[in-house]
Amino acid sequence: MAWISATYLLAAREDEVQKRAESLALEQSVEMPLEAVRDPKIRDTIVARVAGIEPFDAHRFRVTLQLATATTGEDVTQLTNMLFGNCSLQDDVELDGVEFPASLLERFGGPRYGIAGLRELVGAAKRPLTCTALKPQGSSPETLAALCETFGNAGIDVIKDDHGIADQSYAPFAQRARACQAAAERASAATGKPVIYAPSLVGSPRKIFENARLARECGIRAVLLAPMLVGLGTFAEFVAEFGEFVVLAHPALGGASRISPAWLFGKFFRLLGADATIYPNYGGRFAYSPDVCRALAGAAREPWGSIRPAMPVPAGGMSVERVPEMIEFYGQDVMLLIGGSLLSAGDHLAERSRSFVRAVGGGV
Amino acid sequence: MAWISATYLLAAREDEVQKRAESLALEQSVEMPLEAVRDPKIRDTIVARVAGIEPFDAHRFRVTLQLATATTGEDVTQLTNMLFGNCSLQDDVELDGVEFPASLLERFGGPRYGIAGLRELVGAAKRPLTCTALKPQGSSPETLAALCETFGNAGIDVIKDDHGIADQSYAPFAQRARACQAAAERASAATGKPVIYAPSLVGSPRKIFENARLARECGIRAVLLAPMLVGLGTFAEFVAEFGEFVVLAHPALGGASRISPAWLFGKFFRLLGADATIYPNYGGRFAYSPDVCRALAGAAREPWGSIRPAMPVPAGGMSVERVPEMIEFYGQDVMLLIGGSLLSAGDHLAERSRSFVRAVGGGV
Repeated sequence: MAWISATYLLAAREDEVQKRAESLALEQSVEMPLEAVRDPKIRDTIVARVAGIEPFDAHRFRVTLQLATATTGEDVTQLTNMLFGNCSLQDDVELDGVEFPASLLERFGGPRYGIAGLRELVGAAKRPLTCTALKPQGSSPETLAALCETFGNAGIDVIKDDHGIADQSYAPFAQRARACQAAAERASAATGKPVIYAPSLVGSPRKIFENARLARECGIRAVLLAPMLVGLGTFAEFVAEFGEFVVLAHPALGGASRISPAWLFGKFFRLLGADATIYPNYGGRFAYSPDVCRALAGAAREPWGSIRPAMPVPAGGMSVERVPEMIEFYGQDVMLLIGGSLLSAGDHLAERSRSFVRAVGGGV
Repeated sequence: MAWISATYLLAAREDEVQKRAESLALEQSVEMPLEAVRDPKIRDTIVARVAGIEPFDAHRFRVTLQLATATTGEDVTQLTNMLFGNCSLQDDVELDGVEFPASLLERFGGPRYGIAGLRELVGAAKRPLTCTALKPQGSSPETLAALCETFGNAGIDVIKDDHGIADQSYAPFAQRARACQAAAERASAATGKPVIYAPSLVGSPRKIFENARLARECGIRAVLLAPMLVGLGTFAEFVAEFGEFVVLAHPALGGASRISPAWLFGKFFRLLGADATIYPNYGGRFAYSPDVCRALAGAAREPWGSIRPAMPVPAGGMSVERVPEMIEFYGQDVMLLIGGSLLSAGDHLAERSRSFVRAVGGGV
């Protein structure tokens, strides 16, 4: 019988932590008092177990629970429900990390491309990759496409929509995706270097799938999806059905402060098939520390059974000037995402974009 | 031009709050420096605006932003993205509440049944309604169905699956739904009172829609869905496509501690079509205060343009003994959900269930 090992940080007094951990185990499995569970088979094979309690900091313990794999039905949504459904509502609990049995790793499968596939697609074997965003929203498809071509001509590897660009009246998905992909193809032809355009897919499942089929028809090879926003199950279903797309995961709505960012964005999004995972870099306009960023990049890249590594993509208030520091910090297996700071260059956009490309050792 | 008015609690020093509020407005709209936005039309119609700043408590301000309705593309997922996508990652921000323009209220539409429709379905015009849960997971369809019949014979109005019951090997959805619905119908026939069984729909969009079609074929009239878990867009799409089901919303994964529970579970789930909204009651095993619960029930029930009231469903560690207190606190327009405490009665389950029904003035 397979068990999932989930670790939580639990705020509790030392003389109460055992009891609190046991009630957490009930909450995340049968959700009723143990004495009311009358079937001994359910007690043995379904009720979650406290597998370890150790001190963590002044007021918290690290508690490891074993959750029965059978309760997940091998479904991503239900897995999330068992890991953090009800206890997300209890503010003394944080989800710290999870170890999955091999059967679940195989079931979910992780990235189809990962770091190696992404590198092959953009034609860059070793150097850090570059990424930028088309914005601001409110721009017309033509404006966004012109911007895409400028970035592509400068040699940037991946050009994604801003995550706020969806399917709005001022830039409907079909027109925008077609125009930007054509611009990326022109830039590829002009520079002799692959330029990848990744449109943002936002909406209900039906809209996401419809727009993905449109993207497929345009020859688009990568997309941007925010798993917490569109739903983890929708994300997983997308990955399973659209094998031709490299998938960039966006962290929007992922700031439930009580799920470890390293685990959620690094490990879990990777498990569900993110080829690259975007997250707030330290020193930008978000509050992540260097330690959190290091752990997150590690979670995305480190060996993990049969699961391919995913590309870490630090972002948020980054600048071309910080590129050397980022490479020093992250090494070569990273895709740096700089958006607003390039666009602030105004008439010098092409020049600053080329500086970005040169800073990672690229160039066209 | 229509604007959405979103209110955030922002931790900032008084001499910095104006600047911080302006950067939040950029984050939640164009996501780039204002000086890099070159199109005056975008500055006027797309960039979010700071509409108000007032002191809230010792270290926070209440900041009201106006967000351009056009940026939402009238889509639930994108609306959520604009309201709390990126700033969910900034831990100095909490989403406090939102005022929508009438056009968006009409677009989303709210509950199709609401309190009045739910009352009609269960045949109880005025008294508080009763609700319980089938558990523990791990039980066979036959065991769950027997439990359902016992509850139904006791006169309980709504019998839902535990939210942890999905589509697992030990109780596949099709068998379970069919068996429990048949049990509810037998109880209805025996008592002459409608008994509503609400199966839990958990999974990727495809699985949810497949199982909903199965439920429809069985004659099931209500379902349980967790909007944050399955994705808000999936939830909205479900409501739009399955008009025959009364929808009970479950708060699982909704504990992002930085979205106001009253707004999220009371108002937003209602806007998206929840006919009833389940939430942790005060004094149980979750940490909500009486004030939060009062605000949440108020948000679910209060007049709101063309949007029907949704039934508040306090739950979590409730007992039959607390029923009078709950009625005193919530009034008559409430559905009380008691699960584990009934099941703890063991051989006296039927008797305790009848006590629950009598305590709200019901009975068969």
